[in-house]
Amino acid sequence: MKAALNKSPFIRQIRRRPLALLGPLAVIVLMYYLFFTGSKPQSKYSYKVKKNGLFGRTPDAVPRNLPGDHISHYNLNKLASTPMAVYNKEKVLVLTPVSRFYEEYWKNLLRLTYPRDLLELGFIVPRTRDGEVALKKLEKAIKQVQTGKKENRFSKITILRQDTESLSSQTEKHRHALSVQKERRSSMALARNSLLFSALGPYTSWVLWLDSDIVETPPTLIQDLVSHDKPVISANCYQRYFDEDKKENSIRPYDYNNWVESEEGLKIAERMSDDEIIVEGYPDIATYRPLMAHFYDPNGDTNAEMELDGVGGAAVLVKADVHRDGAMFPSFPFYHLIETEGFAKMAKRLGYQVFGLPNYLVYHYNE
Amino acid sequence: MKAALNKSPFIRQIRRRPLALLGPLAVIVLMYYLFFTGSKPQSKYSYKVKKNGLFGRTPDAVPRNLPGDHISHYNLNKLASTPMAVYNKEKVLVLTPVSRFYEEYWKNLLRLTYPRDLLELGFIVPRTRDGEVALKKLEKAIKQVQTGKKENRFSKITILRQDTESLSSQTEKHRHALSVQKERRSSMALARNSLLFSALGPYTSWVLWLDSDIVETPPTLIQDLVSHDKPVISANCYQRYFDEDKKENSIRPYDYNNWVESEEGLKIAERMSDDEIIVEGYPDIATYRPLMAHFYDPNGDTNAEMELDGVGGAAVLVKADVHRDGAMFPSFPFYHLIETEGFAKMAKRLGYQVFGLPNYLVYHYNE
Repeated sequence: MKAALNKSPFIRQIRRRPLALLGPLAVIVLMYYLFFTGSKPQSKYSYKVKKNGLFGRTPDAVPRNLPGDHISHYNLNKLASTPMAVYNKEKVLVLTPVSRFYEEYWKNLLRLTYPRDLLELGFIVPRTRDGEVALKKLEKAIKQVQTGKKENRFSKITILRQDTESLSSQTEKHRHALSVQKERRSSMALARNSLLFSALGPYTSWVLWLDSDIVETPPTLIQDLVSHDKPVISANCYQRYFDEDKKENSIRPYDYNNWVESEEGLKIAERMSDDEIIVEGYPDIATYRPLMAHFYDPNGDTNAEMELDGVGGAAVLVKADVHRDGAMFPSFPFYHLIETEGFAKMAKRLGYQVFGLPNYLVYHYNE
Repeated sequence: MKAALNKSPFIRQIRRRPLALLGPLAVIVLMYYLFFTGSKPQSKYSYKVKKNGLFGRTPDAVPRNLPGDHISHYNLNKLASTPMAVYNKEKVLVLTPVSRFYEEYWKNLLRLTYPRDLLELGFIVPRTRDGEVALKKLEKAIKQVQTGKKENRFSKITILRQDTESLSSQTEKHRHALSVQKERRSSMALARNSLLFSALGPYTSWVLWLDSDIVETPPTLIQDLVSHDKPVISANCYQRYFDEDKKENSIRPYDYNNWVESEEGLKIAERMSDDEIIVEGYPDIATYRPLMAHFYDPNGDTNAEMELDGVGGAAVLVKADVHRDGAMFPSFPFYHLIETEGFAKMAKRLGYQVFGLPNYLVYHYNE
């Protein structure tokens, strides 16, 4: 079952773009060179510009030197983040702060059709009992993939254990209480930053933030988001549920952190003291901000874009240069915003635009 | 001459701390394992907790897995930044945005006695003509060290080429004009962030920011700063010159960015519009902030500390966790501060204290 799931989109991808096969092959060759030819080094030192890189169009974006002398040379100017990401062999780093391990999250991740040899994964796991359980399941799942067929392996996986005590796991209801939101979001911001600062490499073109409770996305999630060629772009996060009234399966909005700033929101912020924050999605603070969650049109174009001022972290694609310029997740009030909403504001302060796709849905786990 | 310079402090260091020898040896063994034993792998997959790490007291701070399956596992909780950095084999990342390459900077760097196998270097070079020249000289200097004796090599060196156009090189006088400071400092902030986000690893314990025009420091710079065990600590940046009046060699303050906030400074900030910044060290804006540069006492204790609110970038040691929590160099006005001064403010917003050593001098190049 799992094999079939992996195989079919992979083959479809190859049919659509036969050149995509070159990527995994090139990486296998490179890995072979790195790890299996070291015992008889031809030349211990080779410090010269590679005229023709293995990776086609962006030769200088990859190290000019192979390890041995431990010098890496990267030309950020030639490191591209383009809509032709697969063709250009652009490296995507998928970052997930793991609160719990959902089998459905992992299966969905394995279903993604972006070439695995261009995909790096990064996880950060809290020091809670839930974290311990999640870590064990995650390690088991990873082991299965990384010891399986070479072409199915991810190019690199980094697992971090959080250094600060996390809030102990909360029930769904408690977790959403406005009173605990500030602390929870602040702690989540620290986790995201640890992951980002530790895992981002000089060769990374894109960062996909994918929350651990996102259990269903289109398999072409990365290619779809990449194709919009935006500095920051967020999918619309919904949830499947059983509608007791209509007695049928249905969907409903879940993440209210994707929003457009409002006059009222700005006025509220102006009246606040420096350390107060606005968290979107609570009746306690009526900002009247247009929320992307409410702009979903089942008959609309899935490619429709809307400009945003705040984003959630469910499924957000970021050009790595936005992070490299300094955009991180403030754990302190930044323009009265924190975490992903503060990140969007910071990206904007750095001169980047932030977008959302109201009709492009990803689904949150239903507890 | 150069060999003698390298050798003597190295030997002194070993005499003082014989255990320091274990570090380089361990890394050589590890490197040997990584690159020269891959052709006959004993077991392709070994995903288990290493009970006894090579690195002594912090076994879990280093990857639990060696490459091959490309999974790295780091326990940030066990990654320490302590005054016993050498003994604990704590990795230090030295980051330098390179405007020009000064032979004296490089010689001073080579004189540092912190074990090379625990030192990683990161450089970012602008896309200017000066940058091209600096890059060539830097590459030549690096090549000499990294092809030399194994025990003298740095554990890793990363060179980045900046992706944005830098301001063209300015004369000393023009460079310091208040009018160009905002743009220059903002561009420098972007360079620092690119370097930081790209080069910081999950195993890094400390980051030393060392400007490319710092040509003289005590050889024990890293150990000295580390021994204070502070989240952020800045040396006092002076300059040697010939005093024409007294007809003798003398020293004078150079970097005015290490300061303590003042009532007047806060008042000025309050009156400013959101996008205005205060840059310290100019008579145009009289903040009456106490500047560390003026607190130097030639007869004072070199270990004397003072708490600061703003820092410069000349020689600043930062616990890696401060950066991992999100502290970066804002290129936009952050509490009316940018770059290193904004970084200090951000570290404080994240709950960290910032210190300076008024009697501990490092010297800026004299043009």
